[in-house]
This record gives sequence, structure tokens and C-alpha cells, in this order.
Amino acid sequence: MEKIIRFGVSMDSKLLNMFDRHIHKKGYTNRSEAIRDIIRDHLVSQEWMNADSETIGTITLVYDHEKGDISERLIESQHHYCDNIISSIHVHLDKHNCLEVLVVRGKANKIQEISDHLISNRGVKHGKLTMTTTGKKLV
Amino acid sequence: MEKIIRFGVSMDSKLLNMFDRHIHKKGYTNRSEAIRDIIRDHLVSQEWMNADSETIGTITLVYDHEKGDISERLIESQHHYCDNIISSIHVHLDKHNCLEVLVVRGKANKIQEISDHLISNRGVKHGKLTMTTTGKKLV
Amino acid sequence: MEKIIRFGVSMDSKLLNMFDRHIHKKGYTNRSEAIRDIIRDHLVSQEWMNADSETIGTITLVYDHEKGDISERLIESQHHYCDNIISSIHVHLDKHNCLEVLVVRGKANKIQEISDHLISNRGVKHGKLTMTTTGKKLV
Amino acid sequence: MEKIIRFGVSMDSKLLNMFDRHIHKKGYTNRSEAIRDIIRDHLVSQEWMNADSETIGTITLVYDHEKGDISERLIESQHHYCDNIISSIHVHLDKHNCLEVLVVRGKANKIQEISDHLISNRGVKHGKLTMTTTGKKLV
Repeated sequence: MEKIIRFGVSMDSKLLNMFDRHIHKKGYTNRSEAIRDIIRDHLVSQEWMNADSETIGTITLVYDHEKGDISERLIESQHHYCDNIISSIHVHLDKHNCLEVLVVRGKANKIQEISDHLISNRGVKHGKLTMTTTGKKLV
Repeated sequence: MEKIIRFGVSMDSKLLNMFDRHIHKKGYTNRSEAIRDIIRDHLVSQEWMNADSETIGTITLVYDHEKGDISERLIESQHHYCDNIISSIHVHLDKHNCLEVLVVRGKANKIQEISDHLISNRGVKHGKLTMTTTGKKLV
Repeated sequence: MEKIIRFGVSMDSKLLNMFDRHIHKKGYTNRSEAIRDIIRDHLVSQEWMNADSETIGTITLVYDHEKGDISERLIESQHHYCDNIISSIHVHLDKHNCLEVLVVRGKANKIQEISDHLISNRGVKHGKLTMTTTGKKLV
Repeated sequence: MEKIIRFGVSMDSKLLNMFDRHIHKKGYTNRSEAIRDIIRDHLVSQEWMNADSETIGTITLVYDHEKGDISERLIESQHHYCDNIISSIHVHLDKHNCLEVLVVRGKANKIQEISDHLISNRGVKHGKLTMTTTGKKLV
């Protein structure tokens, strides 16, 4: 069962004003929610520094599908890591360029390994690993 | 038509050794490819600093679909920005947690605005904007 | 005159527990202080995105003073920007390697220009611009 | 003794053009030097991921010296870590605000600990750890 705690934070009025203006611009309607988001983001980074905890990452790849056998090589690599790759989405950006996003679950260092392996493929123009979370431990 | 240029880079043997070991670990089989990847990554960051150029981003959201009306609010927001959101993928992480990745196309500051808007929704546990590229200008 | 405001933040007890453990590890003895620090850090990044506001940066350079005329070139460059460079510290790391940290004041894009100019000098092994603040607007 | 190696990199002319324009803006007069700098920066980040290797960091602190006993507390902390803090520079930003940069040598996790300890002090408005290098292994 969830238990919500309310605690007090003291802050200089000038600093609080600046913060309120900042989160208003970002679209927050609620100060607590903005503070919770900032805190969760810090904790997710920590989760990723602990190589042993299971987590989730997304790997974004942009490549030219006409460059050699890049499509086959990416598919082959993905099958090799099929235990970790949950799902993927493919977008045809234009006649040449493809974007693929893979959702990967596993230990932080395993996800890093998969990301390195895919991004280092000749033909991948741009690749990025985004570290997110299973959400389990975050409330 | 493509034109491949070959140019020389001079480097101290010790530095080159360290670099070769580093890219070997990352899975590169080819030094040129590793250098091209590093260069492309720098240029993509530049692209994002130019607010007027069209580019691609992916927005990753983790949320608990049982928290209030978060699902409806996210769908509504996405419809509001339907001109920019190309496609999305949804993964059921467990009984409570969802992961959604949206592929967004537009000017850098528009994509930032959409990302801010979605991530600031109460109920989103973790959100990240990943800046990638249309690939058009990158070879 | 300063005015301290105290406001309430509501948070799930599980999330609060994780946050408390995290800031304890970082050495904080006070939850408000940890939250203020996180908020200030966000606002400093914003300050740097506004190219027109005056701010402070530190430029860290590691170089081999025996490599060509690197020392003279760095001194010459620094004199060129003397209106912005407030002060600097020099450390002899070993027989060959020097570390220099410059404190620079000015508009964000001017500081970036100075940093680019210094770091691109042949002979600089590693250079980094750290974005900080005049502290004036932060309470 | 140093040994300079020259090797070939092949690149599409369009990508090379973009890179050349980019480094020209950054002030580089030499393509090899720009590529060496990018490579060194990658290797320095790796050095910091290896908790056991000795390295150098700079810790930048902005604080209001009139806030309680912050000055004494910072001095005391610095003495506690005097084996690692090589030197520091102090700048009076205005009547209230001080900037201090400390040059710290030690294992990566030790430097991180010192940085956490100093930045978490009540009264420090902004703090940043910059990871650089002893320069020994970089040529």
C-alpha cells in the first residue's frame, strides 16, 4: 500500500520565485511534481551506476539501409541479443534513412554492451543509448 | 554522387595504441569508422543547437498507467502534437509500469517543447529526450 | 532583505526513503539543502542557455609545457582576453605536464569562444569548460 | 622517445566538409589536432570510469562567505583532505560571493567523495566537479 508523506522545505523567496518561473515554463502545474521528477531523475542515474541492478534502456539508431548489408547485420545482432531486446520500432525517415528504436532490458553493463555492439556497426550514422528504468522501485 | 576522400592523420604511437584498445572494446573493427562515428556525434549536437533546423528526437516515458488519468492525458497531448509525432511504441514493463517511446520530427525547440510538455505530466516517473538526426546531412 | 519561505512537498514514502539514502551518501545532513542544491544546479544550466546574461566559467587545461611554444601561445591568448579572464592558477603536475585553471567572467557565448580558442591550441592535451555562476541571482 | 605514426582515414567528402567547417569555427587550424583532441577527451572519460587509476579533478565552488560559518567549514574540510588537494584559487566575485577552484589528485572515487563532501556543505550555491587528467598517459 502506498503511503504519501508531506514534509516541509525551506527556501529563500527569491530562489523559489526563480524555480517557480522555470517549472511553469516547462509546463508543470504543481511544485511537488516538479521536485519529484528531479529526484527520480537523480535516482535513475544512480541505478545505472550499479552494474548489477536490472534496468531498461532504449537504443536509437539512424542508418542508411542501402549501405552494404547494414540491415542484415543489425537484424543478426538483434537476434543474438533477443533475450534482452523486448521490442523495437522502425521509421522510414526518407528514401535512404531509417530510424530504429530498441527497448532493451537487462543489467546496466549488458545493455551498454549491446548498445556498443550495435552503434559500432559500419553504416550506423548516429546511435544513442538512453538510460531509463523499469519503474519498479520508483514511485 | 558520393565521393570518398582519404586523408592522413598523424598521432603519437602511444595515443594511437590507447585509442585502438578503446575502440576494440567498443566493437569497432575499423579505425576510420570509429573516427567517423565520433565526428558525426559532434555534428548532431551542433544541429540541435541551431533552433531552426529540422531534426529528429525520441522521447522515452515510463509511467504507471493506473495513476489517475495519465493514459488519457498522454494520448490527448500526443494528438495535440500529431503533426510532429511520427510514431510510437508501447511496452508493458509489468502489471503497473508502461514504457512509451515517441519518434518526433520538427525544429529543435519544438521537439524540446513537446518533450517538456509530456514529461511534466503528473504520473510520468521518468522521461528523457534523446537528440538524434534526420540523417539527411550526415553521410 | 532575505525572506525564507517554507512550503510542503508530498511524496510517496518509498521514493522519499530512496532520496534520503542517496543524499546521506552524498554527505547532506539536511533534506532542504539537498533540494535547494538540485534546484540551483538546474537554474545555472538555464543561465548558460541565455547567451546575453553575464556569468562565470572555469577553463581547465592540461598541457605539456615542453611542446613547442605552447606556453607562450597560451599566455598571448590569455592577454588577448584579459578583460574576461579574472585570474588563473597553475600547477606543475610532473616534469612535463602543467595544469592551468582560468576563471572567466562574461556573456555565455564569449566564455565559450575563449574556451574554444584556448582548447584548440596544439599542445593542449585536455581542456574543459565548467559553467558556474556569479552567484548574484542565486540565493 | 616519441614516435609519430601517420595513418589514413577515409570519409565521405560531404561529412569531411561539415567537420572542417565545425573545427574552423572552434579555432583549429589543423585537422589532425582536432581529431587528437576528440580522441583524448574520450580516453579521459574512460580513465574516470576506472575507479583505481590516479587522476586529476578540479572542484569549482561558488558560495556566500557571509552565510554562517561556511568559510571555516570549507577550510576545515579541505584540511581533512590535504593529501589530495594540491592547490586552490580564490576569487572575490562581489561583496558577498566567492568562487574557489581546488585542484585535486587521487583515485577517481576519492576525488568524487571529496567533491560530494564539499558541495553538500550548506552555503555552497553551486558546485561542480570537472574530470581532467594527470596527462601522463596522454600524448
